[in-house]
Amino acid sequence: MLKTLRDLGAATIYEAQGAKGALDSGMKPIDPASRLAGPALTVDARPADNLILHYAVQKAKPGDVLVVDAKGFMEAGPWGDVLTAQAMKLGIAGLVISGCVRDANLIVGLGFPVFCRGLSIKGTGKNQPGRVNVPISIGDVLISPGDIIVGDRDGVVVVAQDEVRSVIASSVMREEKEGGQRRAIESGTSTVDLLKLAPALERLGLV
Amino acid sequence: MLKTLRDLGAATIYEAQGAKGALDSGMKPIDPASRLAGPALTVDARPADNLILHYAVQKAKPGDVLVVDAKGFMEAGPWGDVLTAQAMKLGIAGLVISGCVRDANLIVGLGFPVFCRGLSIKGTGKNQPGRVNVPISIGDVLISPGDIIVGDRDGVVVVAQDEVRSVIASSVMREEKEGGQRRAIESGTSTVDLLKLAPALERLGLV
Amino acid sequence: MLKTLRDLGAATIYEAQGAKGALDSGMKPIDPASRLAGPALTVDARPADNLILHYAVQKAKPGDVLVVDAKGFMEAGPWGDVLTAQAMKLGIAGLVISGCVRDANLIVGLGFPVFCRGLSIKGTGKNQPGRVNVPISIGDVLISPGDIIVGDRDGVVVVAQDEVRSVIASSVMREEKEGGQRRAIESGTSTVDLLKLAPALERLGLV
Amino acid sequence: MLKTLRDLGAATIYEAQGAKGALDSGMKPIDPASRLAGPALTVDARPADNLILHYAVQKAKPGDVLVVDAKGFMEAGPWGDVLTAQAMKLGIAGLVISGCVRDANLIVGLGFPVFCRGLSIKGTGKNQPGRVNVPISIGDVLISPGDIIVGDRDGVVVVAQDEVRSVIASSVMREEKEGGQRRAIESGTSTVDLLKLAPALERLGLV
Amino acid sequence: MLKTLRDLGAATIYEAQGAKGALDSGMKPIDPASRLAGPALTVDARPADNLILHYAVQKAKPGDVLVVDAKGFMEAGPWGDVLTAQAMKLGIAGLVISGCVRDANLIVGLGFPVFCRGLSIKGTGKNQPGRVNVPISIGDVLISPGDIIVGDRDGVVVVAQDEVRSVIASSVMREEKEGGQRRAIESGTSTVDLLKLAPALERLGLV
Amino acid sequence: MLKTLRDLGAATIYEAQGAKGALDSGMKPIDPASRLAGPALTVDARPADNLILHYAVQKAKPGDVLVVDAKGFMEAGPWGDVLTAQAMKLGIAGLVISGCVRDANLIVGLGFPVFCRGLSIKGTGKNQPGRVNVPISIGDVLISPGDIIVGDRDGVVVVAQDEVRSVIASSVMREEKEGGQRRAIESGTSTVDLLKLAPALERLGLV
Repeated sequence: MLKTLRDLGAATIYEAQGAKGALDSGMKPIDPASRLAGPALTVDARPADNLILHYAVQKAKPGDVLVVDAKGFMEAGPWGDVLTAQAMKLGIAGLVISGCVRDANLIVGLGFPVFCRGLSIKGTGKNQPGRVNVPISIGDVLISPGDIIVGDRDGVVVVAQDEVRSVIASSVMREEKEGGQRRAIESGTSTVDLLKLAPALERLGLV
Repeated sequence: MLKTLRDLGAATIYEAQGAKGALDSGMKPIDPASRLAGPALTVDARPADNLILHYAVQKAKPGDVLVVDAKGFMEAGPWGDVLTAQAMKLGIAGLVISGCVRDANLIVGLGFPVFCRGLSIKGTGKNQPGRVNVPISIGDVLISPGDIIVGDRDGVVVVAQDEVRSVIASSVMREEKEGGQRRAIESGTSTVDLLKLAPALERLGLV
Repeated sequence: MLKTLRDLGAATIYEAQGAKGALDSGMKPIDPASRLAGPALTVDARPADNLILHYAVQKAKPGDVLVVDAKGFMEAGPWGDVLTAQAMKLGIAGLVISGCVRDANLIVGLGFPVFCRGLSIKGTGKNQPGRVNVPISIGDVLISPGDIIVGDRDGVVVVAQDEVRSVIASSVMREEKEGGQRRAIESGTSTVDLLKLAPALERLGLV
Repeated sequence: MLKTLRDLGAATIYEAQGAKGALDSGMKPIDPASRLAGPALTVDARPADNLILHYAVQKAKPGDVLVVDAKGFMEAGPWGDVLTAQAMKLGIAGLVISGCVRDANLIVGLGFPVFCRGLSIKGTGKNQPGRVNVPISIGDVLISPGDIIVGDRDGVVVVAQDEVRSVIASSVMREEKEGGQRRAIESGTSTVDLLKLAPALERLGLV
Repeated sequence: MLKTLRDLGAATIYEAQGAKGALDSGMKPIDPASRLAGPALTVDARPADNLILHYAVQKAKPGDVLVVDAKGFMEAGPWGDVLTAQAMKLGIAGLVISGCVRDANLIVGLGFPVFCRGLSIKGTGKNQPGRVNVPISIGDVLISPGDIIVGDRDGVVVVAQDEVRSVIASSVMREEKEGGQRRAIESGTSTVDLLKLAPALERLGLV
Repeated sequence: MLKTLRDLGAATIYEAQGAKGALDSGMKPIDPASRLAGPALTVDARPADNLILHYAVQKAKPGDVLVVDAKGFMEAGPWGDVLTAQAMKLGIAGLVISGCVRDANLIVGLGFPVFCRGLSIKGTGKNQPGRVNVPISIGDVLISPGDIIVGDRDGVVVVAQDEVRSVIASSVMREEKEGGQRRAIESGTSTVDLLKLAPALERLGLV
C-alpha cells in the first residue's frame, strides 16, 4: 500500500484526495530522485536544538517517517550524519523537517530520503524540550501521528490514515483517467475538449 | 536563427543587446541542462488558476514559447503532466512561468524546457479569466507577443523581434571578442589590460 | 593541510572549532560536488559592479580563495566566464561571493568552485570603488584576509589562520569519534546512550 | 468574557494557555491601536478573489470575527471599503486575513479592526469557489469555526471554545503574577531570583 | 485634475481604469498620511548610487514626481535630506523609489511625499551612470515619462497620460456607485444582491 | 557626548565615520520617535530562548544598550514586559535585538527604546546557553562590547569606542556642511554644483 502511494506520487494523491494536504512549496527533497511514503511520527521541536530528535528516533517503528516542526528556522542543521545512521539502523523510512539539515552528501549517498527547507551546517544545542506524537503543522497543514506522508520531487502531501484506501482508489482512477487523457491528446483531442472547458471559457468571453 | 540564439545563451545575448531584457534571478529552469529559444505567446493569468493556460495552448503555433505571468504566486502549480503532453503534441517549444509547476520528474524526463520560480503540487481552479497575446511583465521586463525568449541555466532574456538580427550579430561579435580575451588571458594578459580598466582604477586610487 | 580541511568538510570543521564561523544557509555551491579550501583574499565590493573584482584577481596568489562581499544583491552577476578564465590562469582556488554569478554551465564545466546566492545574468558596471584584503562580513561572520575558507555542499565555514592546526586536530578527533559512534549505532547502541542525553531528557520530563 | 479577553491581550493569553495558538509574526493590525476579540467565522478562500468573502459575510452573526485564509498572497486586496461597510452594518467584530486589504485609511477611520499581511490595491475577481466554517490554518495554527480570536498590536492568538474559561482564569492569574513581579522588580528583586533561574544558569555554567 | 486624482486615491483609480497600473505591495509611503499625484520623471538608476538622482532632479519641472528604479536594493538609502531640500526647492511633488531612503524624520517633518520599500542609512556612491526619462518598470508595471502617478497609504498606481480624463470620469462614477452601494448597505441591502453575485454563487454551489 | 550622538542621528554618524557600522535595513524602532545612544552590552543568544537575556540584564550598567544577536528568528518574542521593567529599573538605555519582541504597546508607552525585526507573541524557553560581552554580528556588522550604539527611525549604527570623539567631530562638521548646503540650495545653487558632480556626469556622458 505504501509502495503504491510512493509510486503514485505527491501531486496525483493531492488532487485525488480533493486538493488538500500539500505542504508548502518550500519543502523539497535534497535529492530530486527521492521518493518516500510512510506513517508520520510527529515531533514538535524548538529551533536550533535536536535533543528531542534523538528522543523521537527511539520511539520510531520501522517504516515510520519522522515529521519535524523545527519552526522553519533556516540557520541551524539539527539533523546530520549521526542521526541518519541511527534512523537507518532503526529502519526509519525518511525525514520531513521544517528547517535545515547538514551532511547532505552523506545523506544522499546513503539514499536516506530527506525533505527540508535547505542546508545549514550551524549547530544545534541539546537543551530544549519538545513533544513527540502530537498534532503539528507545517505549511498550514495539520499532521497527526500516523498520517501517511508521501513525498517526491514535487513536494510532500499528507493523507489521513482512514482515507488511505479511498485515496489510493481515487488516485489510481485519476492516473487511469490521465493516461486516457494523454492518449486522447496524443491522438489530437485538445485539453479544452477533454476537460470540457468550453462553458467556462464561454462564460468569460474566451472563445 | 533560433538555434543560434539558443547556442549563444542568455548571458551573452543580454550583454550584447545593451544589458537589457533579463528576467529576475528567481526565474530558473527545472533542469539545469535546459536550453530554450522561441517567440513568446504571452499569457496574463490569475494566481492558482489554469483555465487560461488551456486556452492559450490552443492558440500556440509550433515553436512558440508560452510566457505566463501567474503573478509570482508560489503555492499553486498550474502546469503539470496533462498540459505538458498537450504542449508537446502541438510543438510548443517550452514554458516560462512566473509561478510554480508540478510533475517535475515527468517534465524533465520528457525534455520539455520549463523555466519557473519553484515546484508546487497545490491545485489550481479552472474558473478565472485571463488574456492571451497581450504585453505582460515578469521581473520588471516587459514582454510583448512575438518577442524572442532565450533561456538556459543562467536565466531568461527577452529580445525584441525587430532587434533579433542585430542582437545575433553583436552577440557573435561578443563571443568572438570573449574568445579572443580568453586566449589572451591564457597567454598571460591580465583582464585589467584586456578591458582597459587602468584609468577607472586610477581614478578611484586603485593602482 | 588544505587538502585535509577540504576532506573534513564544512560541517565537521564548524563543530570541531566550537560551532563558529559558518556563513548563512543562503551561501551554496553552484555544483553540489564542489569542495574548496584555501586562504581568503577578501574583497569589499559594491552591488552590481565588478571593477574591484578585476583588481582583486591580480592581487591573488595561487591557491587563494576570493571572498567577496557583494552586499547580497541578487539582481546582478558580477562574475562570469572571463573572470573565471583569469582566475584559473592565475591558480585561484575558488570564489565565495555574497551575490550572484553567471555562466554557470561554463563554470561547472571547468570545475571552478563557486559558492554564491544564486545565478543572475544581469550586468555589472565597471565604475565603483572597493577594497581588497580588509576584514569583511558575510552572513554575520567576520572574515579577515588569510582566514582559511572551507566549502562543500553543506555550505561554507571560516577558520582563523592561527587556529588551523588545532581545528584540524579536533576535527580529526571528531571524525574518529563520529566513526566510533556510527559503529556503535550499527551494533545497536542508541544515540541517547552514546551522547549521554538521559540527564537532559530526564530534566525535561522526557523518559 | 470577550471584553476580558480583549483587555488581557494576545501575548498574555498565548502564554496562559500553554504557549499555543499564536499566528505567525507576519499577521499584524493595520492600526496599532486595534484590539479585537470574538468567535471565528472561518473562510477558506482562493488568492485574489473575494466572491466567497461576500458570501461569508452574510453567514456572520453580530460579534463574529471573519478569519480568512487567502493563501498569504500579497498582490491582491480582496477586502476594502464596500465589504467593511457591509461587515460593520452586520455587526461583524473584525477581520483576520492571511493576505492584504485596501482602503486602509477608510478602515482605520471607521475603527474596524483588520489584521492582515499588508496593503494591496490590486483587484480581485469574483469567480472562485471557497468554503465557509471549515477548519483552516494560518501561520501553522489550526482555526476551527467558533474558536475565539484575540488580536492586538503584538499579533493574533486563537483560543479553543471549550478552553476559554480556563484560559481567562490562568491569564488573570498570570496578569496578577506579572503585576507582582513588576512590583518586586520595582522594589529591587532581580528577574533571575523572581523566576528562579539560578539552577538553569548554574547548569550552563553561567553564575 | 491632479488634485482630483489625489483625492480619488490609488485603489479607486486602479479599479476604475480596469485593474491595471498598480505597483507591488512593497511600495508604501513613509508617512501613511501622504497623498501624491503628478507626472512621472522616470529614472533608471543603479543600486547604491545617487549620481543620477542629482542629475534627474535638475531636469524636473515643478509638480513632477520622481520615479526611480533603484533595482529594489534594500541596503542603501540613495535619497536623504539634501536631495529632499533640492527637490522641494524646485517644486518637485514627491518621490517614488524602488529602494530605500534615509532621513525619514526630516522627510516626514517637511511633508515631502516619499513612497519606497523601506529605510536604510547605508551610503551610496556617486560613480554610476543612469538614464532619465526612459520607460522603466517597478513591480512589473511599465512607467513611461509623463505617466501620472497617484499614491496614498494603500500604494501607488500609474495612469497613462492619454487616459487621465477617462480614468477620472470612470473613477468619479465608481465613487458615486460605491457611495450608492454604501447607502444601500446602510439601509439593509446585502452586497450579494448589490453586486449581483447570486449567479456566480449558484454556479459554484454556494446558495 | 551620548546626547550629542543621539541628536546627530544614525544617518549622519554613518556617513561621518566613513560609511561603516550600519546594521541592515530590517532593524527598526518599534516607535518611530525612538532615539537611542549608549555603550553596547552584547549578548549572543539562541533563537526562541531568553535565559541569557535575564542573565545579561544583571550584568548591565546604567546607560548600557543591550545588543542581542537572537539569530534573526522571527517566530519568538524573547523580550516583553517583565524584562522591560527589569531593564528600566536598572537604568538600561534600550534594546537592539536581531529578532522580535512582544508587549509593544507597553514598551512604547513606557518610552523604552527597542530596535528589532518585528513583533511576535510566541514564547521562549529558558533552557539555552548564551554568552555576554563577546563580539557579535548583526546585519554583517561586528559589534564589540562597549561600542557605542546610536539608533533612530532610520536605523542603527555602531561606533567604535576609540573613534567616538573623532566621529562626533566629523559628524558636527558634516551637519554644518549640510546646513550650509541646505542654505545654498535654498538660495538657488543646485546640488550638482554644490557637490561638484559635473566631472562625474561628464565622464558618463550626462551633461
